[in-house]
Amino acid sequence: MSVKRVTHKALEKLQSKAQKTLQRSLDQHVKLAVTGFSGSGKTAFITALVKHLTTQANSQNLPFFDVVREQRLIACKQVPQKALDIPTFDYASASAHLLDNPPRWPPSTERINTLTLALKFRSHSGLRQHVASDHTLYLELIDYPGEWLMDLPLLNMTYEQWCKTQLAVLSTPAYREHCAAFLSELNHFDATAPVDMSTLNKLAELYQATLMKLKKHTKLSQLQPGRMLIPGDLAGAPIIQFFPLLTHGQQHQDSQYAQLESRFEAYKKQVITPFYKDYFCAFDRQLVLVDILGALNDGPDTLAQTKLALKETVDMFEHGKSGLLQRLFKPKIDKVLFAANKCDAVALSEQDSLTRLLHTLLCEQENELKFSGVTVDTMTISSVKSCQPKQVNESGNLLHCVYGRPLTESEYITYLPPEPPDHVLSDAQWPENGFNFLSFYPYPAYQGQLEHIRLDHTLQFLIGDKLT
Amino acid sequence: MSVKRVTHKALEKLQSKAQKTLQRSLDQHVKLAVTGFSGSGKTAFITALVKHLTTQANSQNLPFFDVVREQRLIACKQVPQKALDIPTFDYASASAHLLDNPPRWPPSTERINTLTLALKFRSHSGLRQHVASDHTLYLELIDYPGEWLMDLPLLNMTYEQWCKTQLAVLSTPAYREHCAAFLSELNHFDATAPVDMSTLNKLAELYQATLMKLKKHTKLSQLQPGRMLIPGDLAGAPIIQFFPLLTHGQQHQDSQYAQLESRFEAYKKQVITPFYKDYFCAFDRQLVLVDILGALNDGPDTLAQTKLALKETVDMFEHGKSGLLQRLFKPKIDKVLFAANKCDAVALSEQDSLTRLLHTLLCEQENELKFSGVTVDTMTISSVKSCQPKQVNESGNLLHCVYGRPLTESEYITYLPPEPPDHVLSDAQWPENGFNFLSFYPYPAYQGQLEHIRLDHTLQFLIGDKLT
Repeated sequence: MSVKRVTHKALEKLQSKAQKTLQRSLDQHVKLAVTGFSGSGKTAFITALVKHLTTQANSQNLPFFDVVREQRLIACKQVPQKALDIPTFDYASASAHLLDNPPRWPPSTERINTLTLALKFRSHSGLRQHVASDHTLYLELIDYPGEWLMDLPLLNMTYEQWCKTQLAVLSTPAYREHCAAFLSELNHFDATAPVDMSTLNKLAELYQATLMKLKKHTKLSQLQPGRMLIPGDLAGAPIIQFFPLLTHGQQHQDSQYAQLESRFEAYKKQVITPFYKDYFCAFDRQLVLVDILGALNDGPDTLAQTKLALKETVDMFEHGKSGLLQRLFKPKIDKVLFAANKCDAVALSEQDSLTRLLHTLLCEQENELKFSGVTVDTMTISSVKSCQPKQVNESGNLLHCVYGRPLTESEYITYLPPEPPDHVLSDAQWPENGFNFLSFYPYPAYQGQLEHIRLDHTLQFLIGDKLT
Repeated sequence: MSVKRVTHKALEKLQSKAQKTLQRSLDQHVKLAVTGFSGSGKTAFITALVKHLTTQANSQNLPFFDVVREQRLIACKQVPQKALDIPTFDYASASAHLLDNPPRWPPSTERINTLTLALKFRSHSGLRQHVASDHTLYLELIDYPGEWLMDLPLLNMTYEQWCKTQLAVLSTPAYREHCAAFLSELNHFDATAPVDMSTLNKLAELYQATLMKLKKHTKLSQLQPGRMLIPGDLAGAPIIQFFPLLTHGQQHQDSQYAQLESRFEAYKKQVITPFYKDYFCAFDRQLVLVDILGALNDGPDTLAQTKLALKETVDMFEHGKSGLLQRLFKPKIDKVLFAANKCDAVALSEQDSLTRLLHTLLCEQENELKFSGVTVDTMTISSVKSCQPKQVNESGNLLHCVYGRPLTESEYITYLPPEPPDHVLSDAQWPENGFNFLSFYPYPAYQGQLEHIRLDHTLQFLIGDKLT
């Protein structure tokens, strides 16, 4: 009797252990990279995602996120991250900003950081359903500067190719005022002379100041090398102190040209490649936030450059799946979402135009991506609402306005935003005075609840298939 | 005739090429690591070294540096560094500080940085003399924070061992006031409970604040983990967010204890080991600057801890040559100099006592080091003079004073410094009111020339043998 009971217990223990092991093997890990060119709202997006999943996960709030609508999400909480050497995303501080009175945007974090959520859910399909009552999806969010993404195309370029491309951008009339000082100094630089460290440093500093100005005053994304803007521990290191040259051809190995070329190559090898290998190739899913309204405000040149930046970005995913880099590093990203953020700054009826415009900017590449097995989508979202739609009757005309507090004002205003185009305009079609979409403060949360536009669609596309 | 001439030319060319190759193979590279515990004057030392070698290399100024005394140093200049990913030492700014009117100490650089000098010299011995008229020694200076050096002993410790050692230091009466808040909070921390990220973060922040206070108010060197004080790109990463615990023994893998232990182990593996492997093991020579006057001011506990810190440092060099780490990484440091810096703040006649005191602190280890083939020396220096000796006749007594401008004063003063002990004092021997050595601003340079004490001896010991 006693023996039997022990055996029974041992069997139960074994069964329980086997079930736990099976269950663990069914737990899944998804690495979601959240990126976007500067000012696209990455920090606010991640904050909103964590807030909605941990404290607002109900079917009224997230109706298009299946696991929530079907009431299968049991709970979601932050758990210790695996990658101990990456700074933790400071959710507490960022959410405090959004919920403050008056609400403010959280300060932008200009480096890589991460946060892991555990989503406990009930499965309704397949093997999982039969094994255990609940399962866990570990969602690793990785937020990295858009500048790092814009550095990736350098991997496919020689120094000479980069010089030509970059000088072409800097010479564009729209950016000339910010680049004039550098370009003029470059004319007096003798690239064939022996290395003179103070001349090199001086011009590198001038180039850095130029990139800083472009970042501050324009929405141009081609600000390379990206680490010149966010140097971190590399501040003052020669590896980020290079700039494009006019002179080309073979140069003596002690020349300034050779020194800059070796810095460019070292940057590719020691800065970009490790990022590509250690992080980029480990991502499962990627969200690229695009500030398309900012690009429209900036004018036709920046819209064209945004299109180019998106093309180059897509090329990297594409290369990732089938090109040379794939053979070297085997990236595994299988879903990419391009999202035009902050869409509530245009009238509700015009948000579709934004989606179509983003789609147009990407359509050549989307096809390529699909061909290489990457699922891709474009969406127009607002991860944190900054405006409310407001209809105004003006002399019998119904105007689709927005109501919010612009960053430049201290009061809330009702504003009739311009109509965004749904395709790339020709120079002749471009409005004479350009576009003027306003940027707003976050809209005050009601009873501590944040509002969003299509965050649930975003979640469904990015991780819905892992929560069935 | 024409053929003959061509052949002759070709032969000349070949001879010249062979000679160049041979000459290059005789050029030497020396990696000199300059380190020191916080406030020991690393930046000023490197600045002085570059200044004296590039613009003040004459036999009146550096009489004990053989290559200069024998007038064989042709020229010395800064050349591009090989390691492009390490920030360049900002000599221009640091020397401007020292030569300013009034002169100031350069701000401390709290990260690794480097600068390469090429020393062209005539050889007077061996093969070199017969090959070519002049040779080049490339001197790579690497300046890294003392905190990184103090992290090395962690490689030989388990988390449990470190906790015990570190808590013993923090509980020393001399440091208790700075550590009380942390130690009291630690008493309420349940290490066996499941991970709670906000509790962990709170205590890690409190521990960080404690280390910051100790750094500011004491001369204690055991501030581990060092990156908590200088986080750089690791700011906010769990890998630097650990602290010593009271509880020990095996703990559940999801416990707070296990989380902290895994952070400690990750720190060893991902932060300390790469530094040890990539830099420490590549150094040829090492200078450790010691602020022995600061330790004396701080009291007997700090002097004892300085002795311990020096012992642990020496152990790393020792291990380097014969221990486990040597088998893994093969360090090649063959000369180590421990130098008590800022010695001009004591009377000329008392500087020997300082040397003897430093020697006493190190003597047990010095023997070990010599046994493992490392040449070691102790010296008392002043890389940048801050005082002038001044004899004052007071009622017939000749007082050995110093003349300079203390950091706490706006005027120059004549001051009679205390007499430093030449051995470690017992508690009974320690002066009732402790020591009070003053710290001074740099002494104004005369006609742009910096002054030093025994910088030439330092150079001769560290690189003299490479310049014969």
